[in-house]
Amino acid sequence: MCNGSSEKWIPRFDFRGGFPLMTAAAPPTTEQICINTLRTLAMDAVEKAKSGHAGAPMGAAPMAYVLWTRFLKHNPADPHWFDRDRFVLSAGHASMLLYSLLHLSGYDLPLEELERFRQWGSKTPGHPEYRHTPGVELTTGPLGAGFAMSVGIAIAEKTLAARFNRPGHTVIDHHTYGICSDGDLMEGVASEAASLAGRLGLGKLIFLYDDNSITIEGSTALAFTEDTGKRFEAYGWQVLRIDGEDVAAVEAALVAARADSGRPSLIMARTVIAHGSPNKAGTAAAHSNPLGAAELRLTKEALGWPLEPTFYVPGEALSVYRKAVPEGHAAQAAWNARMDAYALEFPAEAATLRSLVAGTLPTGWESALPVFSAAGGAMATRAASGKTLAALAPVLDGLVGGSGDLAPSTNTFLKEYGALGVDGWDGRNLHFGVREHAMASAVNGMALHGGLIPYSGTFMVFSDYMRPAIRLGAIMQTHAIFVFTHDSIGVGEDGPTHQPVEQLASLRAMPGLRVVRPGDANETAAAWKLAIESPGPTAMVLSRQDVPTLDDVERIHAGVARGAYVLSDPPSGEPEVALLATGSEVGLALAARDLLVADGIPTRVVSMPCWEVFEAQDRHYRETVLPPALRARVAVEAGATFGWERYTGDAGAVVGLDHFGASAAAPTLFEKFGFTPAGVAERARDVLRRLTLAAP
Amino acid sequence: MCNGSSEKWIPRFDFRGGFPLMTAAAPPTTEQICINTLRTLAMDAVEKAKSGHAGAPMGAAPMAYVLWTRFLKHNPADPHWFDRDRFVLSAGHASMLLYSLLHLSGYDLPLEELERFRQWGSKTPGHPEYRHTPGVELTTGPLGAGFAMSVGIAIAEKTLAARFNRPGHTVIDHHTYGICSDGDLMEGVASEAASLAGRLGLGKLIFLYDDNSITIEGSTALAFTEDTGKRFEAYGWQVLRIDGEDVAAVEAALVAARADSGRPSLIMARTVIAHGSPNKAGTAAAHSNPLGAAELRLTKEALGWPLEPTFYVPGEALSVYRKAVPEGHAAQAAWNARMDAYALEFPAEAATLRSLVAGTLPTGWESALPVFSAAGGAMATRAASGKTLAALAPVLDGLVGGSGDLAPSTNTFLKEYGALGVDGWDGRNLHFGVREHAMASAVNGMALHGGLIPYSGTFMVFSDYMRPAIRLGAIMQTHAIFVFTHDSIGVGEDGPTHQPVEQLASLRAMPGLRVVRPGDANETAAAWKLAIESPGPTAMVLSRQDVPTLDDVERIHAGVARGAYVLSDPPSGEPEVALLATGSEVGLALAARDLLVADGIPTRVVSMPCWEVFEAQDRHYRETVLPPALRARVAVEAGATFGWERYTGDAGAVVGLDHFGASAAAPTLFEKFGFTPAGVAERARDVLRRLTLAAP
Repeated sequence: MCNGSSEKWIPRFDFRGGFPLMTAAAPPTTEQICINTLRTLAMDAVEKAKSGHAGAPMGAAPMAYVLWTRFLKHNPADPHWFDRDRFVLSAGHASMLLYSLLHLSGYDLPLEELERFRQWGSKTPGHPEYRHTPGVELTTGPLGAGFAMSVGIAIAEKTLAARFNRPGHTVIDHHTYGICSDGDLMEGVASEAASLAGRLGLGKLIFLYDDNSITIEGSTALAFTEDTGKRFEAYGWQVLRIDGEDVAAVEAALVAARADSGRPSLIMARTVIAHGSPNKAGTAAAHSNPLGAAELRLTKEALGWPLEPTFYVPGEALSVYRKAVPEGHAAQAAWNARMDAYALEFPAEAATLRSLVAGTLPTGWESALPVFSAAGGAMATRAASGKTLAALAPVLDGLVGGSGDLAPSTNTFLKEYGALGVDGWDGRNLHFGVREHAMASAVNGMALHGGLIPYSGTFMVFSDYMRPAIRLGAIMQTHAIFVFTHDSIGVGEDGPTHQPVEQLASLRAMPGLRVVRPGDANETAAAWKLAIESPGPTAMVLSRQDVPTLDDVERIHAGVARGAYVLSDPPSGEPEVALLATGSEVGLALAARDLLVADGIPTRVVSMPCWEVFEAQDRHYRETVLPPALRARVAVEAGATFGWERYTGDAGAVVGLDHFGASAAAPTLFEKFGFTPAGVAERARDVLRRLTLAAP
Repeated sequence: MCNGSSEKWIPRFDFRGGFPLMTAAAPPTTEQICINTLRTLAMDAVEKAKSGHAGAPMGAAPMAYVLWTRFLKHNPADPHWFDRDRFVLSAGHASMLLYSLLHLSGYDLPLEELERFRQWGSKTPGHPEYRHTPGVELTTGPLGAGFAMSVGIAIAEKTLAARFNRPGHTVIDHHTYGICSDGDLMEGVASEAASLAGRLGLGKLIFLYDDNSITIEGSTALAFTEDTGKRFEAYGWQVLRIDGEDVAAVEAALVAARADSGRPSLIMARTVIAHGSPNKAGTAAAHSNPLGAAELRLTKEALGWPLEPTFYVPGEALSVYRKAVPEGHAAQAAWNARMDAYALEFPAEAATLRSLVAGTLPTGWESALPVFSAAGGAMATRAASGKTLAALAPVLDGLVGGSGDLAPSTNTFLKEYGALGVDGWDGRNLHFGVREHAMASAVNGMALHGGLIPYSGTFMVFSDYMRPAIRLGAIMQTHAIFVFTHDSIGVGEDGPTHQPVEQLASLRAMPGLRVVRPGDANETAAAWKLAIESPGPTAMVLSRQDVPTLDDVERIHAGVARGAYVLSDPPSGEPEVALLATGSEVGLALAARDLLVADGIPTRVVSMPCWEVFEAQDRHYRETVLPPALRARVAVEAGATFGWERYTGDAGAVVGLDHFGASAAAPTLFEKFGFTPAGVAERARDVLRRLTLAAP
């Protein structure tokens, strides 16, 4: 019996086939060797990096071994095979466990990369990073995030299966497996996601909970005494309780989890952190620190492992794990055959599915974008967004989304389609509930799964609830679309808790995210085009209140595609002042321009719906829009002024809002807070006066 | 039996004492009149405002009536009486319920204010706002927030009671009651907070759950089918299930809740949204919209209520509610007497308690601030913060805080004191668990309760998890201190998920929050002084890695107190270039200065630990630090450049990080990303060159 902390056995080094045998007890089984390979690789890597977490991989090694060698359907030669099972290491700090599994299973991750754990330029960063390491399905580390994203992955599988599988033709059929920690399950986002998964009956979502009773501060009892199993039962999950060291029990639990097709499953596996370490097993000291040379030696001895070489992989273990290569090849070949048979009988469906899998957009899809006429009157950009979504849904089969219980306000419900889990699973709408953080996480997960273009919907102020997930989307460059309506004090009576002020600035500060705030209905349609074609995530920022609809659709579409553009210029001659605006303040800037022009001041209006796209334009274009010589610039936006100095410069001014809002009718608020044509025009005159005074 | 939607009775208007009697059934009891007063005030106010939520107040009126007239200990004449029960309307959209209760109970909130619901300048904003309306204990509206803050309120009560009560002298003894909605309980922050409250056994925390099965999108069944009661039992709560219309059941449940001193209680009250409305009761249409004139009329008729006047308060109801005034006076008088008796026997404790209640700091407390010597070598600012906290705790009795399972890293554990709920309740530390959002909410709650100076601790990147709570702290101006360590790529090997980049900018964009990023150990001590004396919340942003300790403590303290200051200047003459820096980049700026000075370029170094405080200085001081003529400015900060243009201006430059980080040793990252003395110096030379070229 191979056991570190309680029943000890004395190893004697008697190599046969590269592996030591023990005399005091039975020789280790291949199973034990496979498991201990995961443990020792993690120990060695963390020790060499002098940084990282070996304790969790050591405790979770048995369950990972069982899952990866007996259940996981994957093809190491093609990490992107669409019908693979997805594996989510929500406890991202246990990254060495995943790297070891990937290396051993035959992914393109050589042992040398494991030896370069946590080093500059390696494929083995501190936490798993999507797009960085072959076989890493998503970026994890911030606790709860992987768990919550896995719910989106399972949603994507379930709806694609419902939409495309046909009797006798099962072309979408895979599981989402994960390993999570107590830290994951303490996070609120995991609670939200678990409740949602229970509601949706995601039977192919299976989590192994590495229940090791240890957190960084000490015993989980310090802060976490709840009955987690009972909690998950309350969510509608199947809950299974096992000894995580018992390989047969892990296998039986996974079988039982797969057998329950109507409920997600949580397998609560009691484990010992740093299992095998004589002095650190079961202690907080083993959570976030290397074992240290002495303890590492003792642990290897206790495990009957050779002290040298480090990063030792017994051939016996490798041959077990590497079966994944031929098995994965065969599985994918079988799937290819199934897809071919499907295509014969259901050519249209197969073509659609293949296009969704490839992520290609149908030719000419953009002709479905609606065109709005100024004659049609003013329209809130949230309303224009709703019309755009409704127009796009029939041509973009991947478009699926929903709202955090605000659909009537966010205009995100596709009325021609059903709701997932409510009207079967072939619909296009999701009721996420009042769970913004899980919603954004699920949207990331759906995008990661592939085959869908997912979107969320809520009020702009609640982007704060979603921020950790938006950030992960930005890091991973998920093709996610986060719709935010009620984007300013235009919210009105609901008051300061519901009126975003600093959210635009704080989202713009985030790398890798496009923040688009269209100024009218046509800019909104163009913004959707930008989002649909974006390589990464987009925050779509929309007004509650009506704004004037502008004509000249061609100019608008061309302009939005470049992030910012000259919306209006003097009929002849050079402008003396530029008004820069976004969203609902574009109409305000145009009104202020009228006042300035009436005063004889030639005025340019620049609409700047997406700073990130504008920044990516060449310098020539940028200086065409904002010529260096045109120093008199006034930005107007009903939000924090923070960040606008980049465009207004030393001579300019910003009409913004550097305090929280108030509860009153929106028109009152705009007036009280200085967002009036006269107010903006006066600021422009101020700027011009100061420049005239300063001139030599 | 007064019932709107199912068993109807026909009212006949036969006024007696201002109230209509019914003939088809028994005349309404005083109880029913009191309850219907709450309903009709909400109906009338929402109808008049043409905005707001009447449905929830109508459904929750019975439980609110019972709680406020039979249990709540409060003094309408002194809303700040320290030993009052706290009432938390977590379902903030039901604000009219609270305003009606406050008005009826005799708070300084005239009926005219209810008539001005949701109007500019009124005392009755769309959601309850702390500091705005007498008797409103906290700002609520964003769902889950009030519930989570209430946990902090109850923590504060429990620890102050443990620290100050003595045998025979109970001077701290009050309950925290709340009303929450299904939306509150779907939010992850409520899950985190509930699990924490269960762990801490907060027996005096009692929530009524207005379980009306309706959300904005429709039936809760669309998204929320979990067994919420079972979930709360799993957290360790007492769960009671009642009919929310049954006044006796509400009373019995509150008695049972109070009787369980070891567990918080959730009273699940089945209610009907818009109870009383013949056509809208129990429907989503009643959630967020006025009833409409016709339905309002039908509802008043169904309730046996006069159609005119609107905002009608029967004298019978008023006299019941107004008993709160004499009862509150008596309760507070009795408490005053208890405090006097306590002060006689325990004068020192009483003096301390009175000082905590008043929020005054002991004279000379700041002399406890540690002074660090450059000779002592480099020190991480998180370490300096830990030493400062340890030094302050003995002189500032109110200082209580903890970390989200990162205490060994955040240096926030006060080693000389116990942990609440682990070592009794007279300690000073909290184990919040991996629940950042609930942690920040609880810290707000503790600050709102009063008597404490609470702080939280986690990594800077996880400020994203806490953002909605930080924002509420900023809106309410809670005296909360949010400690964030590991504040840049200095995190190192943990990689991009753990390295903040945009967090500094996004927190600075938030109104009402002070963001302080001290540059060395002495600035850290000064930053704590700023935070302790701040009227509102502070984000304390600290390095993981060592930074040089600077001498000249007096200059540093004076400078930090003004937000930004000249840390170093040429010995004579005017500087040609200014290097602006915060935090760990202050040392880098000083090193770059050395290179520039060696090149013969007179250089100023400006340390800018707190932009918000600097902005609040007079123009003269600001221009002393950053003279308009000194246009060659280079900012250096290991974070997003976003926002720095405000200080660097058109001619300046920013050495920052507009992309995510990477996993590697911190020194490698700083070098690879251009944060080197040579790199900064070269940028400064660039700026000078461009200015020289541009000169006429």
